[in-house]
Amino acid sequence: MNIKPLADRVVLKPIEAEEKTAFGIIVPDTAKEKPQQGEVVAVGIGRLLDNGERAALEVTVGDRVIYSKYSGTEIKIEGNEYLILNERDILAKL
Amino acid sequence: MNIKPLADRVVLKPIEAEEKTAFGIIVPDTAKEKPQQGEVVAVGIGRLLDNGERAALEVTVGDRVIYSKYSGTEIKIEGNEYLILNERDILAKL
Amino acid sequence: MNIKPLADRVVLKPIEAEEKTAFGIIVPDTAKEKPQQGEVVAVGIGRLLDNGERAALEVTVGDRVIYSKYSGTEIKIEGNEYLILNERDILAKL
Amino acid sequence: MNIKPLADRVVLKPIEAEEKTAFGIIVPDTAKEKPQQGEVVAVGIGRLLDNGERAALEVTVGDRVIYSKYSGTEIKIEGNEYLILNERDILAKL
Amino acid sequence: MNIKPLADRVVLKPIEAEEKTAFGIIVPDTAKEKPQQGEVVAVGIGRLLDNGERAALEVTVGDRVIYSKYSGTEIKIEGNEYLILNERDILAKL
Amino acid sequence: MNIKPLADRVVLKPIEAEEKTAFGIIVPDTAKEKPQQGEVVAVGIGRLLDNGERAALEVTVGDRVIYSKYSGTEIKIEGNEYLILNERDILAKL
Amino acid sequence: MNIKPLADRVVLKPIEAEEKTAFGIIVPDTAKEKPQQGEVVAVGIGRLLDNGERAALEVTVGDRVIYSKYSGTEIKIEGNEYLILNERDILAKL
Repeated sequence: MNIKPLADRVVLKPIEAEEKTAFGIIVPDTAKEKPQQGEVVAVGIGRLLDNGERAALEVTVGDRVIYSKYSGTEIKIEGNEYLILNERDILAKL
Repeated sequence: MNIKPLADRVVLKPIEAEEKTAFGIIVPDTAKEKPQQGEVVAVGIGRLLDNGERAALEVTVGDRVIYSKYSGTEIKIEGNEYLILNERDILAKL
Repeated sequence: MNIKPLADRVVLKPIEAEEKTAFGIIVPDTAKEKPQQGEVVAVGIGRLLDNGERAALEVTVGDRVIYSKYSGTEIKIEGNEYLILNERDILAKL
Repeated sequence: MNIKPLADRVVLKPIEAEEKTAFGIIVPDTAKEKPQQGEVVAVGIGRLLDNGERAALEVTVGDRVIYSKYSGTEIKIEGNEYLILNERDILAKL
Repeated sequence: MNIKPLADRVVLKPIEAEEKTAFGIIVPDTAKEKPQQGEVVAVGIGRLLDNGERAALEVTVGDRVIYSKYSGTEIKIEGNEYLILNERDILAKL
Repeated sequence: MNIKPLADRVVLKPIEAEEKTAFGIIVPDTAKEKPQQGEVVAVGIGRLLDNGERAALEVTVGDRVIYSKYSGTEIKIEGNEYLILNERDILAKL
Repeated sequence: MNIKPLADRVVLKPIEAEEKTAFGIIVPDTAKEKPQQGEVVAVGIGRLLDNGERAALEVTVGDRVIYSKYSGTEIKIEGNEYLILNERDILAKL
């Protein structure tokens, strides 16, 4: 799948709720912001710093991550759902 | 077509929905922000950094890109529709 | 005409719609922000950077440009209408 | 528990009110923002600075901390409730 | 008149509309922001930069300038009306 | 009392109105923001600067200070009321 | 009077309207922001810059200044009214 996110963006494949039990991550039903889980499939070349250099991302392809539910933009590629979002919307790696 | 976008702006030619099937990018009908697709036809000399230097853009002429639907300014040149937008509104290269 | 815009401002002479056909720039009637066209008649010495230096402008006197319609301040000099605006409101050079 | 928060985020285990008496931290019932207590279980690699370096966090695993009540995102791992929040939402170490 | 504006502020003497014909600057009656004209009578030592240095102002005492109408603070000194405003509210020198 | 505020935060013990007469600081009854008085009991290691260094705080333990009334977070430790606030909410030392 | 304002704050003693005629500063009755006059009685050690240094203030003890009316916090010391405000709310020195 040939998609290159720009700057500090990431493309990930959202993982459905049932699969999550393997990692034990299920989200409480409080009104709190519900984090989601997904696998990273592509990463950008990093944020442009004031000095013109790029700061590499912390996540890499294959990482399993938790991200804020309402972040990013949904796209479909060859019938599959993906999400393009900023690395700052990714909370943690599993 | 002789148009030079300024700083970190890009001029692109939006690609209509039908053409998209070749890249498999069709957008889900959720209320989510619907990304669009287009081809880059001109790029600026880059963002002005604090130190006075310019940071070259990531995209170049001929790149096929996905961008946020409601970004940029529409213009018509010799009867064709183009969009002038900031590079930060471009999500990924295909 | 002896007017010197400050910092990264530009003075330009708006070009009326009919003249535009020579450049083929006519604006779609969508509710989108309608860009305008004009000719640069004076430029400032550039934006003041954090390090105290000035960053020269990209546009120069005589350039034909496209700018965002609702930007800048209108003034009249010797009966002619001019617009003083920031360079960041200029989208592209033709 | 294998969770790595990103950048300057922290994962902590909230400590229930009763346990607090040992540290004497009970919160007044004013409408004021009610701070909470918890134990740090994982820390990120630090905030990305303008010069591209990372600034290490002040808190480390095992620290007992007070944090602003309405900050962070709740997650459940292996049946336990955790909170992922930014270090700037942690007020003090006990 | 012994008044020293601070940092990048300027004190100017507004010039009434009739006087303006000499410079040909009369303002169109559109709802657009109506620029004004005045003469600089005092300037500050300049904006404080991140590195602690001061950036000298572009305008100097005696300059005739155009400024945004609704900017600054009106004061009266020895019966005369003056305006204290930031240099960034001055559009151009005549 | 073993509490370490983070970064540029300060823990102080609010001083009740009656005690204030010794310093002569009583607040006018205008609707203006009413400053408060207190004694500093703990200080953080300082704000993190862009270059990764820490800027030491101006106040130290034992200082008597005036702070903006509606700032900070109230906490109780061993039955005593304290306030955790940012140094920028402290107006002056007495 | 032993009060030390923090950072780039200043303590001044407001000067009542009648006294102002000596300096000729009386304020027009337009709805415009009405500047005030006062004498500086204490100054802070200056704003903390990004590089950790302090930038000394422009005003010093004894200066007569004009400031924006609605800025700062009123305090009373030994029965006298004072104002603690940021230097950026001081418009000019007289």
